[in-house]
Amino acid sequence: MSNTLRNDRLLRALKRQPVDCTPVWLMRQAGRYLPEYRATRAKAGSFLAMAKNPEIACEVTLQPLARFDLDAAILFSDILTIPDAMGLELYFVDGEGPKFRHPVRSAADVEKLAVPDMETELRYVMDAVRVIRRELDGKVPLIGFSGSPWTLACYMVEGGGSKDFARIKAMALNDPATLHRLLSINTDSVIAYLAAQRAAGAQVLQVFDTWGGVLSPAMYREFSLPYLTRIARELPRGDIQERTPLILFGKGNAAHLEALADSGAEAIGVDWLVELSEARRRTGGKVALQGNLDPAVLYGSPEAIHEQVRNVLASYGQGSGHVFNLGHGMSPDMDPEHVGVLVDAVHALTARA
Amino acid sequence: MSNTLRNDRLLRALKRQPVDCTPVWLMRQAGRYLPEYRATRAKAGSFLAMAKNPEIACEVTLQPLARFDLDAAILFSDILTIPDAMGLELYFVDGEGPKFRHPVRSAADVEKLAVPDMETELRYVMDAVRVIRRELDGKVPLIGFSGSPWTLACYMVEGGGSKDFARIKAMALNDPATLHRLLSINTDSVIAYLAAQRAAGAQVLQVFDTWGGVLSPAMYREFSLPYLTRIARELPRGDIQERTPLILFGKGNAAHLEALADSGAEAIGVDWLVELSEARRRTGGKVALQGNLDPAVLYGSPEAIHEQVRNVLASYGQGSGHVFNLGHGMSPDMDPEHVGVLVDAVHALTARA
Repeated sequence: MSNTLRNDRLLRALKRQPVDCTPVWLMRQAGRYLPEYRATRAKAGSFLAMAKNPEIACEVTLQPLARFDLDAAILFSDILTIPDAMGLELYFVDGEGPKFRHPVRSAADVEKLAVPDMETELRYVMDAVRVIRRELDGKVPLIGFSGSPWTLACYMVEGGGSKDFARIKAMALNDPATLHRLLSINTDSVIAYLAAQRAAGAQVLQVFDTWGGVLSPAMYREFSLPYLTRIARELPRGDIQERTPLILFGKGNAAHLEALADSGAEAIGVDWLVELSEARRRTGGKVALQGNLDPAVLYGSPEAIHEQVRNVLASYGQGSGHVFNLGHGMSPDMDPEHVGVLVDAVHALTARA
Repeated sequence: MSNTLRNDRLLRALKRQPVDCTPVWLMRQAGRYLPEYRATRAKAGSFLAMAKNPEIACEVTLQPLARFDLDAAILFSDILTIPDAMGLELYFVDGEGPKFRHPVRSAADVEKLAVPDMETELRYVMDAVRVIRRELDGKVPLIGFSGSPWTLACYMVEGGGSKDFARIKAMALNDPATLHRLLSINTDSVIAYLAAQRAAGAQVLQVFDTWGGVLSPAMYREFSLPYLTRIARELPRGDIQERTPLILFGKGNAAHLEALADSGAEAIGVDWLVELSEARRRTGGKVALQGNLDPAVLYGSPEAIHEQVRNVLASYGQGSGHVFNLGHGMSPDMDPEHVGVLVDAVHALTARA
């Protein structure tokens, strides 16, 4: 495995160092909008079969890089691998999203949980990281990731997706001690998981707090923020020179940008509901920022995409520290050609002569 | 019909006048969580059959008032009556929410739309207002309402609910002139609709901008805010002394509170994702505030509900101008007894000796 990275824009931007142009990658850039992905999935049989096979995970991770001038690869996996490895048994129902056969509903259920072993129960993830690093051969950096402790807990307690998060909010209100025990086990697991991905070769790490934004500010400060902060403080990621950057992405995290900037993470990922100019002002140069085009802009014409990309770049303004991304993941009905328009627009509009 | 209102707490709070205790009502307080509602619905056959029959609409409007010490009644109706009257044909599929048989997809579709006639096509709504006012007989004020121009447009263009609002956002990007024409017709209709409800007897008016919060700040300022502001400025609602208060409620409107406070509306309704202390500071005493308990708190124990009500009241702080409400509507699986706990807690915790 080569240690030389031929495209280090992402790492430089995350360290707020000068870049030749703004780096760009897209959440869910490897996915169903690509016909080659759908073909691989048809052969493999299911999403989970792909994610659990390192060679196939590598294949789909690399697919968008063959088409687009993206500045990073992101491990093809799921945010729910940790609870699956804890024994909750992840499965998918078409059109309904992820579900667990054994949800966590009581203090007794929480007592049974333990941090999974990374090189046995989650070995398939680490193997995928190793294979992808080998195949990337230094083309672009590889991003590893995990769900956040709160977001994992949402799925673990609800047993799947939810509109109102009634079960976990009831637990937060009626038995907060049990929820804190669950969040603590999840946090230990996320730290071990990201550390193992880093050891296997991941060069950037991202935590997805998909559901932090359903919490009132007071509940966010009690049930999500402290655990994100503990990850940022305790996750070993090397010395200052060679530090592996950590990105904390959260949907609906706009109310908490000051606190997130003080978490110890190198970068904060934001959705499209906050302007980057405001996010930059409120994070005070303490972190890099990732985002934040509304993914629905990919439904627009090439001209509209160009204009909206320009608006996001203008909102961030001059200087390094910006990683261009969507504010949320891509959808299956998006046009691959529009992704090319977006990626090229970011590079063209930010190229330093 | 008596013009004397025996409980005017809501009107006084909306005018930021002193009150004997904080008024409280709950979005979707007349609904499926009540067994008597489910019984009426079973007899009537469907939600729309209830909404379109003034006597039945009156019956279900009054049901929660018989159980709880609520300070307002809200017209039992739907936010989508206007596009239904425009000919889009509203219908409901169990578990999927509202749908339109004839969605608006093109400039030609928009050209065919006209402001409905309020005393023919929407007469059933005005009749319901008149019957409810008669039956309330001054017990509490009656709130009339409408969907916002943007929120109506979302359902009209998508043809129903949506996760990503792909169709309407594509229209916003690729053909903004057509979307503005649609929003303009919707705004004229909402103004005529609320004016007619007021003429029929509604004593407070609320606009629900349920989907404003899916827009980036720039798109919100282009496609939702100006139309809300036009309603606030153009809706006739009497002279200063007897002015009928207008409440602009929006899910996810926290980024826009300063602009909403300058819209000309008497009150702003907020969801639970912003603290009332912050909302109060940012609206600078220009408007009353309505909200903002997370509806999921009703899944908590009576003790937890009491504590969370106390937190919301403490966040608002001293002085009038607060209408207690949830940050969003109630759900069918909520316990009616918990609603009683909530309502009584608001009154007990704010009673002036």
